[in-house]
Formats: sequence, C-alpha cells, structure tokens
Amino acid sequence: MQNNDSYYVGIDLGGTNLRCVTIDDKGTILSRAECPTHASDGVEAVIDRIMATISEATTRADVSHRMLSAIGIGVPGPLNQASGVVFSTPNMPGWKNVRLKDIIESATNTRTFIDNDANCAGWGEHVMGAGRNCRHMMMVTLGTGVGGAIIIDGKLHIGRDGAAGELGHVCVVDGGRRCGCGARGCIEAYASATGVVKRFLDYLEQGWPSSLSGMGDQVTCWDIFDAAASDAVALKIVQETGHYLGIMASSVAELLNPEKCVVAGGMAEAGEILFSAIRNTCLQRNQHPSRTMEIVPATLGGNAGLIGAAHLAIIRSTDSH
Amino acid sequence: MQNNDSYYVGIDLGGTNLRCVTIDDKGTILSRAECPTHASDGVEAVIDRIMATISEATTRADVSHRMLSAIGIGVPGPLNQASGVVFSTPNMPGWKNVRLKDIIESATNTRTFIDNDANCAGWGEHVMGAGRNCRHMMMVTLGTGVGGAIIIDGKLHIGRDGAAGELGHVCVVDGGRRCGCGARGCIEAYASATGVVKRFLDYLEQGWPSSLSGMGDQVTCWDIFDAAASDAVALKIVQETGHYLGIMASSVAELLNPEKCVVAGGMAEAGEILFSAIRNTCLQRNQHPSRTMEIVPATLGGNAGLIGAAHLAIIRSTDSH
Repeated sequence: MQNNDSYYVGIDLGGTNLRCVTIDDKGTILSRAECPTHASDGVEAVIDRIMATISEATTRADVSHRMLSAIGIGVPGPLNQASGVVFSTPNMPGWKNVRLKDIIESATNTRTFIDNDANCAGWGEHVMGAGRNCRHMMMVTLGTGVGGAIIIDGKLHIGRDGAAGELGHVCVVDGGRRCGCGARGCIEAYASATGVVKRFLDYLEQGWPSSLSGMGDQVTCWDIFDAAASDAVALKIVQETGHYLGIMASSVAELLNPEKCVVAGGMAEAGEILFSAIRNTCLQRNQHPSRTMEIVPATLGGNAGLIGAAHLAIIRSTDSH
Repeated sequence: MQNNDSYYVGIDLGGTNLRCVTIDDKGTILSRAECPTHASDGVEAVIDRIMATISEATTRADVSHRMLSAIGIGVPGPLNQASGVVFSTPNMPGWKNVRLKDIIESATNTRTFIDNDANCAGWGEHVMGAGRNCRHMMMVTLGTGVGGAIIIDGKLHIGRDGAAGELGHVCVVDGGRRCGCGARGCIEAYASATGVVKRFLDYLEQGWPSSLSGMGDQVTCWDIFDAAASDAVALKIVQETGHYLGIMASSVAELLNPEKCVVAGGMAEAGEILFSAIRNTCLQRNQHPSRTMEIVPATLGGNAGLIGAAHLAIIRSTDSH
C-alpha cells in the first residue's frame, strides 16, 4: 500500500468552469470538485476559487495536505511551463504575466506544474484515451479556436519556449483566409467554429441555397454540422473542413510519422462525414506517413484536459526528482 | 588515451560518389577514402566498393578491424533503420529491399547502422555544423528533391516507421503543383531544382521577359539563382521559392518550436535573397515560434551526410549498449 501515499491534483481552469480531480499514482480518480470560474471577478478571486476547489477535492478524497505530491493546472492561454508564468488568457480578463505556479506553490506548499489546456488535453488522451500506447501522436482540438498537442517518444513536446503544438497556425492555404493571429491561411481560419460559420455564410452570400439560410448570421457551427446529413451546403462545409484538417494532419504526418492523429472537440462528434474527409485527404497526400497514420476521435471528451493536468503533475514531479 | 580505442566509420553512399571517413570517439576525422559509386554495376558491385572503401579509410587511419566500434551509412532512399533494409533508391538501379545493415555487419563483423542521406546530413549539422547546441532543430535540404531532418530533444526524430522528416512533402499550396510523389502542392514541387525550373519556364511561357529566355528548357536551377541579382524574373523565382520555404518552415515552427531552421543544399548558397524571403514569410506568419526561429545556412556543405553518418554510428552504438 506504500505506493498509494502519493496523490495528485489536476485542475482544468476554463473561462466558464473550474474543475478539479484528485488521483492516486495509478491514475485512479478519487474525487472531483467544480465551480463556476467567474473570470470577470479578476485574477485574485479566481486564484481563491482554485484554492477552495483543491481543498474540496482533496477533502472528499480524504487526502491530507501532507499526502499531496503535486498539482497540475491546465490554463486557457499562452504560458511558460518552466517559469510558471501565464502570459495572457483571451477569455479571462486581467491575466497578464501571472506567476501562477509560484502563487499556487506558496499557498499550498505543494509542487505545481502548469501547461496550456490543449497540451493537457493531448496528454490526457495519450495517457488514458484514444492515444494510449502511442509512442508518437498528434492531437487536434476543434473549438472556438484550433489547438493541439504533439507527443514524441511518449513525451509531451513543448519546444524551446514551451510554445510547440500550435497546430492551429499551420498554414493550409497560402494567402488564404485571415486568421485571428493576423496571418493568412492558418487551419484555425478554416476549421475553428468561427471559421466554419464564416465559410458557410460566404456560400450563402454566393447564392447557394440552404435550409439554414433563414438563420442568417445567427447560425452556429453546431447548426451547420447537425444539418450536414440533409443540407448540401452544410455537407460541403463539413467535407471541406475535413479536407483542410487533412492537409494539416498530413503535413504533421510527413514531419513526424506518428501512429495516430486524435481529433477532439465538439466538431469531432460530427463523426464519419468529417473523419472520412480527413482520411481521404491524407490518403491522397500519397506518402507512407500520411497514408498509414490512424485518424481517430478523442475518447475522454471534456475530461481530457482535467485528466491530462493531473497526469502532467505525476510525470513532471517524477521527472525532476 | 583509453578513450581513443573507439573508432567509427561513416559512409555517404551517393548516386555518383561513395565517400568514407574514419573518426575517433571525439569526432576527429582521421582519414578519408572515396571512389565513384558506379551504381549501374548493380547492388553487389556497390557493396564490394563500400567494403573496399572502408578498408582503405581504416588502413589510412591505422585503425585495425578490432578497434572499429561501429559503421554508419547514409543511403539515398527510403529505408527502415531498425531492420536495416533499404526499400529502394531512385538513383541506383537494383536496390529493392536490400538488407544492407545485415550484409555489412556480416562482412565486417562490426555493428552497422543505416539512415537516409537527409537524416544523416541533418544529424551532421546538429553535431558539428550550423545546428550545434540546438536542442530542437529542423534542417531542409534543397536539391533535386527537397529533404529534411527533425531533431527533437537532441535526438534525430525518425517516427514510428523511420519515415519522419519528410519535409519535402509538407503541403504549401492546397491543390497546387503536382509533386513527384503524385500529390499536389508539396514544397518539393516548388523548391526542388526541378520545381524551380518549371516555375521559371511557366513565367517565360506567360511572356515575362528574361535574360535567360534564350536557354529555353536547357536552363538550370543554378542559372536561375545566379541570374537573380540582375534578372527580374529570376529574382521573382528566388523570392517566391523563399516564400514557399517560409510557409513550410513556419508550419514546422508552430508544431515544434525549434531554435533553428538550417537550410542546406546548393540553392542555400544563393544567400541573402533566398534567406530574407524565407525570414520575411516566417515573420508574417506572426506567431512566436515562427517569428523567433533562427533561419541559417548549413555550414558543412557536402560533408554533412558523411560526418552525420559517422556520428550516428557513435550515438546508436552507444544508445543500444
């Protein structure tokens, strides 16, 4: 029973909700706690809520402070893993160069590790989800933006400055649509929820008839994906989204020759229409790495980031011993 | 002096020449040997020449058979590093599923490691050239084709099947020019020597005036690069080549956040016109990894593959002990 003296906390700090798990060193989830983030209350209030949620989760699991080995936190924004500084968070006001790692370490007296939410989700899928037993994999997360993670030799690859895995800014159309980052042709400009809606509205403007045209610019990405089975324009949009994702996934395949491409996020639930479009484009790319990479849906859903954050706490606290 | 009891041989098996070095475990080059490959004589004749060249190089270095720790061979074609099988070599007839590693190991009684020429060159630049002290780097080699290598955490990344680093087949123009691989829009279709010439001839056909138009389709990539300082169309071609390379390099940067992109091959000698076009495109890609990656010329020239093959022998024979 000696092994079970090590416990870890994982936190998914979202713009809307703050979620927390306690796990043991085998990865078994022992307890959960959750509260609204209320990000508009500012940084200090959110940090207080992180602390309260950690207490709640560990108390529920009957894990004393002394038994807690490390804390992992997934954060929705760019950061540096080593310094533990969060540079900014697009959906949470006031987060500018917040020394989150130091703050939580001081308050809890427990080693704390932070990473961005996409990396945490990718690590979660690698450890417990669709990417189990993969030595090399990529994960792409489709949401408001397009995020991702790269796992190489069984390790999360973060690069020189911790900024690797920015799959959303791989260029798929030279000189193409303007991305939120300012550049043109990024996959995010095509396959994010907003990109999908913009491309759909462009078709309507060009006079394509659609059952969704009555919704005007109130149409959402989910409306479009839902309508794909019966609406020709919606189908075209989903297939083209898959094509652009296939171009990006194939480039990653040629560079890294991974076993799997795991696709996560709400759009991945669209299922076969999207996945067969991604696969067809990868097959047409013709080279061995693109043709043989498995392209599969994520399996952990909204828990991937939470589980990944907890497991990053295990691996990073062990690595640096 | 005990350390100097370990010696290694590196071989660069090219379609035209076969070159060999003996190095000590510090990487000091002790001797060289070289002969024409005469690839048309077939596989057995080439293997005999490999053996003869190894003997010549080791004899010159006064390294006895017993003192030789491992042999590394760079091969111009797809292969599997683990099985040591060369699948095919576009420029050497008869090489179909040749068990090169086994053959050389049996003949020399010395552990042998093989990798493709682009990986060997990338490893050479990493160990001794422009990529020294980089933890993460990419190398792109511009020649008849476009090849490359990816180094992650100080290790050559070969992927699941040993096929990683195929930078030439990253898609830069969706639906663009047909590549030799059969797919469309690969960077190789734009930035290889043949791609450059084809794009140039297309401009001539469209009626652009050029000082090289008298050469017709006898024009070479080197003529075009040489003329770039004084000829508007040639300049445009070199700049556009840099732009396409920048799109590819930026995608690698976003995925891997490496310190450096090392550019090798004859075209890299074109210098500032090409390099500033690559850098400008990466800057315009806007995200931190693309903006901060250093883009530099290779420094080992035609020796990169040879040196890399010898150093792969060191690292792989040490790894697997």
